[in-house]
Amino acid sequence: MGKGDNIAEIIFSSATRAAIVFQDYDIVVISHTIVSRAEGRLVDLRTINPSAEALEIAEKTGKDARHVEVILRESKRILRVERGVIISESRHGIISANAGVDASNAGGVDYVITLPEDPDISAARIRQDLKRLTGKELAVIICDTSGRPFRRGTVNIAIGCSGINPLWDRRGEKDLFGRTLTSKITCVADEIASAAELVIGQADEGTPVALVRGYLFKPGEVPARAIIRPDEENLFK
Amino acid sequence: MGKGDNIAEIIFSSATRAAIVFQDYDIVVISHTIVSRAEGRLVDLRTINPSAEALEIAEKTGKDARHVEVILRESKRILRVERGVIISESRHGIISANAGVDASNAGGVDYVITLPEDPDISAARIRQDLKRLTGKELAVIICDTSGRPFRRGTVNIAIGCSGINPLWDRRGEKDLFGRTLTSKITCVADEIASAAELVIGQADEGTPVALVRGYLFKPGEVPARAIIRPDEENLFK
Repeated sequence: MGKGDNIAEIIFSSATRAAIVFQDYDIVVISHTIVSRAEGRLVDLRTINPSAEALEIAEKTGKDARHVEVILRESKRILRVERGVIISESRHGIISANAGVDASNAGGVDYVITLPEDPDISAARIRQDLKRLTGKELAVIICDTSGRPFRRGTVNIAIGCSGINPLWDRRGEKDLFGRTLTSKITCVADEIASAAELVIGQADEGTPVALVRGYLFKPGEVPARAIIRPDEENLFK
Repeated sequence: MGKGDNIAEIIFSSATRAAIVFQDYDIVVISHTIVSRAEGRLVDLRTINPSAEALEIAEKTGKDARHVEVILRESKRILRVERGVIISESRHGIISANAGVDASNAGGVDYVITLPEDPDISAARIRQDLKRLTGKELAVIICDTSGRPFRRGTVNIAIGCSGINPLWDRRGEKDLFGRTLTSKITCVADEIASAAELVIGQADEGTPVALVRGYLFKPGEVPARAIIRPDEENLFK
């Protein structure tokens, strides 16, 4: 898997070899790592000159200063630097550790991988290619692992999607006893991404794609970007 | 489903009617609502006298003051009251909206349901009963929906578990390129709970139990309580 590879074609030919025939309503969940790699988002750290700020944060965190420099370039703002972790808001608006810049599964000590330029656009392109190859109406979700403020351990979340409405708004429906639901919005895209990691994660990262079948999602063109909660809506702080 | 019902027996007989035969490594994911109900955690609001604090918060939020009173009783501390939402730390240490006290699917305007007294103990009891009934080594996860500070929509999380280690610590393993993973801990219990809601949620809350099969989890006796991140570990604030 390298720069310029067509992800949809690789998924289609791998599925064909495994005798998997795509169906309408299949959801193809893809680890961002391979999307980033195909889009040339692998960074050779030997080409990076760390800034003074990167050197300072590197000393504080024990991280490679060149890795820190890439994190800074991928960040809109730094929220906190502590215990070896840089919490920042990425260019995409996602608040997470290290702006989604991974050292693991990149290719050894001199490489890191950043998030795709725009994961929603990546998802739309892969979906279009898969539709051409399969003739089916699929959804595509691009995922990344993410830490949480109040809970230990990471879970997989949807950073890009196409063909599925990531948020299922159930306000106005009735509950089992006829009472109207006033606040129920479920982030199905994140739940599907989490489900997929049970397959993706267990195969030692050697399986970057999972097929979710049998879930009747709401088709739509709402991007995963819509999941990101604006700071002023955050009631937890 | 009412107070005193044996959840394991109901699950076992429902599964038997559906010709489902339990296997080792099956994970039974149960919505807390039915566990709470069986444990007598349905509250008749006509028996609740709201305190002055509850009346004040009710006026601010537009909530039923008796519902607010139950939320206050279930909370260790209130973090914020805004836009109709009370963000608090529950008795269990879970930071969420309304201390997990649900008005929906409780039984109309005069009822709310609280979380189980100790969801890990509930999960252990149900697992023990299921083992007796099935002879199989299963895991049990009790789940609830939960909001997130930085992301819109709720996802299902594990509030109680038994038989499965909720956190998969992969630190020290090698990545695809031989680099040692230094920080990878995955909250598989939350991912399994999220996967289960794709089944539980879509059936209009009429399906409170999901069976997850084929995931080779790490057996263990670590409670879901261990997922809760102590405040001093939260780097996002």
